[in-house]
Amino acid sequence: MKEIVIGIDIGGTNTEIGYVDINGNILIKNVISTTKYGDIDSFVAYVAEKIKILGETLKKEFDYKIVGIGIGAPSANHYAGTIDNASNLSWKGIVPIINIFRRHFPSIIITLTNDANGAAMGELIYGGAKGMSDFITITLGTGVGSGIISGGKLLYGQDSFAGELGHVISVLGGRECGCGRRGCLETYASANGVRRTAFELLAELKCDSVLRSYSYNDITSEIVYNAAVNGDILAKEVFERTAKTLGLALANACTAVFPEAIFLFGGLANAKDILLEPTKRYMNENMFTNYKGKVDLRLSELNCDNATILGASSFVWAELNNLTD
Amino acid sequence: MKEIVIGIDIGGTNTEIGYVDINGNILIKNVISTTKYGDIDSFVAYVAEKIKILGETLKKEFDYKIVGIGIGAPSANHYAGTIDNASNLSWKGIVPIINIFRRHFPSIIITLTNDANGAAMGELIYGGAKGMSDFITITLGTGVGSGIISGGKLLYGQDSFAGELGHVISVLGGRECGCGRRGCLETYASANGVRRTAFELLAELKCDSVLRSYSYNDITSEIVYNAAVNGDILAKEVFERTAKTLGLALANACTAVFPEAIFLFGGLANAKDILLEPTKRYMNENMFTNYKGKVDLRLSELNCDNATILGASSFVWAELNNLTD
Repeated sequence: MKEIVIGIDIGGTNTEIGYVDINGNILIKNVISTTKYGDIDSFVAYVAEKIKILGETLKKEFDYKIVGIGIGAPSANHYAGTIDNASNLSWKGIVPIINIFRRHFPSIIITLTNDANGAAMGELIYGGAKGMSDFITITLGTGVGSGIISGGKLLYGQDSFAGELGHVISVLGGRECGCGRRGCLETYASANGVRRTAFELLAELKCDSVLRSYSYNDITSEIVYNAAVNGDILAKEVFERTAKTLGLALANACTAVFPEAIFLFGGLANAKDILLEPTKRYMNENMFTNYKGKVDLRLSELNCDNATILGASSFVWAELNNLTD
Repeated sequence: MKEIVIGIDIGGTNTEIGYVDINGNILIKNVISTTKYGDIDSFVAYVAEKIKILGETLKKEFDYKIVGIGIGAPSANHYAGTIDNASNLSWKGIVPIINIFRRHFPSIIITLTNDANGAAMGELIYGGAKGMSDFITITLGTGVGSGIISGGKLLYGQDSFAGELGHVISVLGGRECGCGRRGCLETYASANGVRRTAFELLAELKCDSVLRSYSYNDITSEIVYNAAVNGDILAKEVFERTAKTLGLALANACTAVFPEAIFLFGGLANAKDILLEPTKRYMNENMFTNYKGKVDLRLSELNCDNATILGASSFVWAELNNLTD
């Protein structure tokens, strides 16, 4: 009988539920509102009902066995099985999400992770990191997140919130960050960082650029990317500068964990070679001498459309295979 | 019967051999030349002989059982059990040190580590990190080394040489480093770094200082320390600047592994509060918001005189207690 893991990605607006096999195929999935069902107990009851309904549809096609549920959520405390004070969810305080799910699914594995760790574990189970024991996933989205696998284990740190490379200070006294400090990597190397760098360069350089017609509110990293692809010199320089900051931060991160590879994941990683190639160059330029040429910088091989469900579900397979704590 | 681990610290000039109990007491020890006995086989044979002689002396006092041998050596490859191209040892290439020791001690645990990882594991077994599962040891000597324990495991990375926080680039395009690059943390936060910062400040500042009478060759970090203790303003500023660079680097290292504590170890850590207090201040100032106030910066509690033997021996106790891979 085919073994199945339910992957659940809880977001601020929507929650995705999918049936996932060991190869990362999503056999059936559905999206529900995160906010419409009231308190957390009612929400989880609705998710459980939805899982049952999806399962009945799937059962018509083939026989399967659900071996676990992998939940992905912001502010996920892996150790405690709780969602801790998530700013973009309506449930406040400490939510014992695993215990609440367990009432509906008493006898299967239930795991909990955040997006960045999910992306790392997803890469290990389904993606380009298969068989690796030491690698880092950097998620380049609105912000910058990271998941670090070292010696085959995800690094959780003292209370499960380790792996925040987006908040390495790249520029002392630099740009204001959402975390309340200045100069964090994510103020430079995220989609938002690209926007800010574009505006910095519009002020600094004199050259013509299609970007000169956009307001700060209107510009996006996609617009900068498209301009760069079309040969806009200023837009290309934006990615060069982004890569410079990111490459140095990645080289520095390597001194801690010396990974085999670093995977770039998320919206900004879609810039592909326009970002990947210069980042690789700056990373290798700044790499500790003994590590030079030994750390591979690659794009994630995780399917972007279903990455959060895949990432969430991957922890169950990892636990079944003793790949993580 | 008392259980004993033999700790062996192989240095460029001398090798120390000690009998160590689980509490970190050195019951008997001896120092021999590393260079006098010819090739590696003859050297190890001599060490084995010395272990026997020391043991006979100890046997007169009480009965014991040797449960393992912990070797510390530069360029130690933990995974392979080899010393790989150590620049300050006369044995060239890849030296299969564990296999050679095993000929003399076929049936006990034999482990291999480098200084910085030894200091970390020693702190866990004998020192201030007892019971911790997430901490970093920073060795501040001629250079800067680090050993990182995360989730109860030492981080080795892809080929056992992870944990090189001394080679984080702290200042892009900064001071020349022995590794061939520029701006590494160890060019600022080591004993040598203190010397260099002193000379930078002698050039930059106009104030009187006892340090103005020293040549670069003659000045040492101890001289700068003593001047600072005696109220020399310039010397005090040297430690302030050192702490600023070190504090930022430590805060940044926390974003990867979020440790419970960081331990400062080695010669420069002897500067105690003159270095510890400002480093703590700068570390907390630059700490990721969510981690603020949660990472303790402390001085190592490992006995400095015997630290290398203790560090080397600690891996055997760790292995006996399943504390490491």
